[in-house]
Amino acid sequence: MKYTIIAKDGLARSAHMETVHGAIETPVFMNVGTVGAIKGAVSSMDLKEIGCQVELSNTYHLHVRTGDALIKELGGLRRFMCWDGPMLTDSGGFQVFSLTSLRKIKEEGVTFQSHIDGHKIFMGPEESMRIQSNLGSTIAMAFDECPPALADRRYIEASVARTTRWLARCKAEMQRLNSLPDTVNPSQLLFGINQGGVIDDIRIAQAQEIAAMDLDGYAIGGLAVGESHEQMYHILDVTVPHLPEDRPVYLMGVGTPLNIIEGVARGVDFFDCVYPSRNGRHGHVYTRFGKLNMLNKRYEKDQRPLEEGCECPCCRHYTRAYVRHLLKAGEMLGMRLCTLHNLYFYNKMMSDIRTAIRGGSFAAYRKDMTESMTSGEE
Amino acid sequence: MKYTIIAKDGLARSAHMETVHGAIETPVFMNVGTVGAIKGAVSSMDLKEIGCQVELSNTYHLHVRTGDALIKELGGLRRFMCWDGPMLTDSGGFQVFSLTSLRKIKEEGVTFQSHIDGHKIFMGPEESMRIQSNLGSTIAMAFDECPPALADRRYIEASVARTTRWLARCKAEMQRLNSLPDTVNPSQLLFGINQGGVIDDIRIAQAQEIAAMDLDGYAIGGLAVGESHEQMYHILDVTVPHLPEDRPVYLMGVGTPLNIIEGVARGVDFFDCVYPSRNGRHGHVYTRFGKLNMLNKRYEKDQRPLEEGCECPCCRHYTRAYVRHLLKAGEMLGMRLCTLHNLYFYNKMMSDIRTAIRGGSFAAYRKDMTESMTSGEE
Repeated sequence: MKYTIIAKDGLARSAHMETVHGAIETPVFMNVGTVGAIKGAVSSMDLKEIGCQVELSNTYHLHVRTGDALIKELGGLRRFMCWDGPMLTDSGGFQVFSLTSLRKIKEEGVTFQSHIDGHKIFMGPEESMRIQSNLGSTIAMAFDECPPALADRRYIEASVARTTRWLARCKAEMQRLNSLPDTVNPSQLLFGINQGGVIDDIRIAQAQEIAAMDLDGYAIGGLAVGESHEQMYHILDVTVPHLPEDRPVYLMGVGTPLNIIEGVARGVDFFDCVYPSRNGRHGHVYTRFGKLNMLNKRYEKDQRPLEEGCECPCCRHYTRAYVRHLLKAGEMLGMRLCTLHNLYFYNKMMSDIRTAIRGGSFAAYRKDMTESMTSGEE
Repeated sequence: MKYTIIAKDGLARSAHMETVHGAIETPVFMNVGTVGAIKGAVSSMDLKEIGCQVELSNTYHLHVRTGDALIKELGGLRRFMCWDGPMLTDSGGFQVFSLTSLRKIKEEGVTFQSHIDGHKIFMGPEESMRIQSNLGSTIAMAFDECPPALADRRYIEASVARTTRWLARCKAEMQRLNSLPDTVNPSQLLFGINQGGVIDDIRIAQAQEIAAMDLDGYAIGGLAVGESHEQMYHILDVTVPHLPEDRPVYLMGVGTPLNIIEGVARGVDFFDCVYPSRNGRHGHVYTRFGKLNMLNKRYEKDQRPLEEGCECPCCRHYTRAYVRHLLKAGEMLGMRLCTLHNLYFYNKMMSDIRTAIRGGSFAAYRKDMTESMTSGEE
């Protein structure tokens, strides 16, 4: 892996990252394909067309259904879903702590019940690394606990200390797995995760601790889980400076277009979020003038594309009136077209952000987009 | 409209048909896009890619939701859904007689309740022509009654006589509509419909009667609604010879691949059916060795495409194992991929049929396909 910063503009930065599965230009938005497919009938071939650089899949979901052992047998998840670019897998931690029931957390890991059939599963740092190694992603994420955003100090302190101990085990296990003869991707990268709720000193101390562990990249987790935007931005302000400057920084699960722009302004390189696909399935589409609800009657005869000037597979051909008709009729095609548009919008925005940073005009871009996205034009 | 028979092979024939919306090579399978979209998240752009020549939409569905008046205002259905090729609209008759409740049939037409919100609608020959004129399809279908396949002679006789009287009214109304200054497609064609259940002499007498009415094409309706395949083939045997040889013949709502091949062997040019899309959404896929259920556990590790050698957008990239995974996980993408494959299969089969007829080898093709489709290979 080679991570080369091409340009800086304030705290924002744009880098070129070489991986065994291809290059990534940052800042980048990863397109979320939970079980190896983007919800809304979007395929890996579509991802190519809408400018996706990195696909993200979910370890927990793939482990409980279809199974990582089978996917390894078939050559790994990239081959399974026919995606030849870089891929990141999450650790399963977030889903274990948000989707499952009857969790028991111990030092070894977590015992919980599958959200599908209730069967008992154990997952700890080693299990998460083995699953991700079976999936063969480009970047694996460390297994962490994501404590409730506003949990008390005592809980967060204990949780973060354990997450850091788990990180050391993740690193050791990933090194072992990468050295095995039959591993899917022997160059699999590992990103550590910073936690600490909204408590500055815990965030900072843990950032310093994991920075010393020489990982391939660093994520900030446990944000966008209930705290305010201001709290989130503040945690970025105080935490990012303590992560190694020569490694990619990933803000997990964030967010709206403006959240991403604010993250970039604070030095973040990687983002992911289900908003564009989830909103697309509900007929909510992004434009540079904000989000529009295509089910609204005002679009009944609107012959404009979802966004004028947009080059996505939907806007190149179809009108708002047609998309609205599809959504009202419950046609899957409506969900697909809105999802394609929204992902294209995010991917194109990241490309514009990179251009702005590399051209030294990110401050102006940030100001323009902030004004435009909140203008309320339709 | 110009319909030119290029080749005959037994009773099978292959023609070149010129329309204002482009050429149609027959025999042809029309791809069903009920409300102006193919179910399974398939767009008009996808139709181009999978070899669709003629798109078929449903008058009744578009009338009760979104509405033909709005679609006319937006330039007609072809423009609305961005399909630049030929399009056929059905008359609404079949849905009126199969989907709605509290029907009252009179000489003027039918009063019924919408299957969506129960509101009262009246549709007769003139209303059906006006709706189809608003939609602006290439080919409009006459408004007919589709009596139950095995209704008694007395019912069918009265129904067929009325359908024939309605046809005269359809023709007159279509001529009037085509001459209006603001009509969407002033060259809209009208196909008449032969009815008569499975009663030979009623079918024949009505075929002769409507043949004399000089229509653009002739459909055989009221089949594939409960009678046996043998009864259906027999009705084609006795009826098709009484339709004008120099006009296209359309067997409505049929059918399986072998039904279509048997129809072609009896002189039919046009087909349509929801099987490929409906089966696709259920994970049932067509191959030249028959239909496979992709949910079956035997495909769990199957790295072959749905059908070996297939050039569809699914088979070019994805494996049976991946498609099965998507279907099991309830991902829309699984339905989309199977639907694309099935429609491609039908469209490609029609292309092979045309090649066989034009090369004088249709009998061999029919024999090979019949053996292969029932071989049970997987």
